Amino acid sequence: MPIKTPFVAVDGIIQLFDENDNFQGIVLIERKNPPLGLAVPGGFVDVGETVEDALKREMKEETGLDVEILGLLGVYSDPDRDPRFHTVSITFVCRAYGIPVASSDAKEVKVFKIEDIPFDRLVFDHSKILKDYINR
Amino acid sequence: MPIKTPFVAVDGIIQLFDENDNFQGIVLIERKNPPLGLAVPGGFVDVGETVEDALKREMKEETGLDVEILGLLGVYSDPDRDPRFHTVSITFVCRAYGIPVASSDAKEVKVFKIEDIPFDRLVFDHSKILKDYINR
Repeated sequence: MPIKTPFVAVDGIIQLFDENDNFQGIVLIERKNPPLGLAVPGGFVDVGETVEDALKREMKEETGLDVEILGLLGVYSDPDRDPRFHTVSITFVCRAYGIPVASSDAKEVKVFKIEDIPFDRLVFDHSKILKDYINR
Repeated sequence: MPIKTPFVAVDGIIQLFDENDNFQGIVLIERKNPPLGLAVPGGFVDVGETVEDALKREMKEETGLDVEILGLLGVYSDPDRDPRFHTVSITFVCRAYGIPVASSDAKEVKVFKIEDIPFDRLVFDHSKILKDYINR
């Protein structure tokens, strides 16, 4: 294929609720691989997969959660947003119930109340993404 | 790079206005290359380019118009939406003034009132995209 293209990724802002529908916080992962730091869970879209299916698969792989997609937050495509190569992130807002469990690229999974999110520990442009989510 | 990824494209629903701000219609192109038919103008995102810059470049190349982006309509990623290969379309709604002129992949540029759009002549999933635009 002669066309070069950026990589397509999906990221999910997971609103976590308990069984009584009480909001617990936003799910973030402590990354196992570089760049190290906190991140919104996400990953690459496979050829042959919709972005919605990729999101559900990645959220399950990284946090153990089954998510319901609530909507699109935005598309983040600054060529410098990922230090490895040019990645276009399609970012969704979603909802999940239960207890997250780290696996795949996540060393640890953490749940933060909005006011406790440590913005200075977020990698990529995820602090911008989370601020866009909060201010939307 | 070991990761395989779908191709990233942008498409633009261009709302065309005259100099007195009267809505003229939606700009569609008659494609020069297969698949032949009518399409929302669009094209592939280059590595190193934001999706917004890609959209403005492609709209200019295909229609001669300078567009102002109004917002994101959606992300279309069905693996079968493009008969050539898996393409993820990031679709924007935008506004332009002036007279469109065909070039690049467009054999001809046409302006349609919403009620006159020939949905059965649209290629890819562009009839779904335009219906989503109308019903949004």
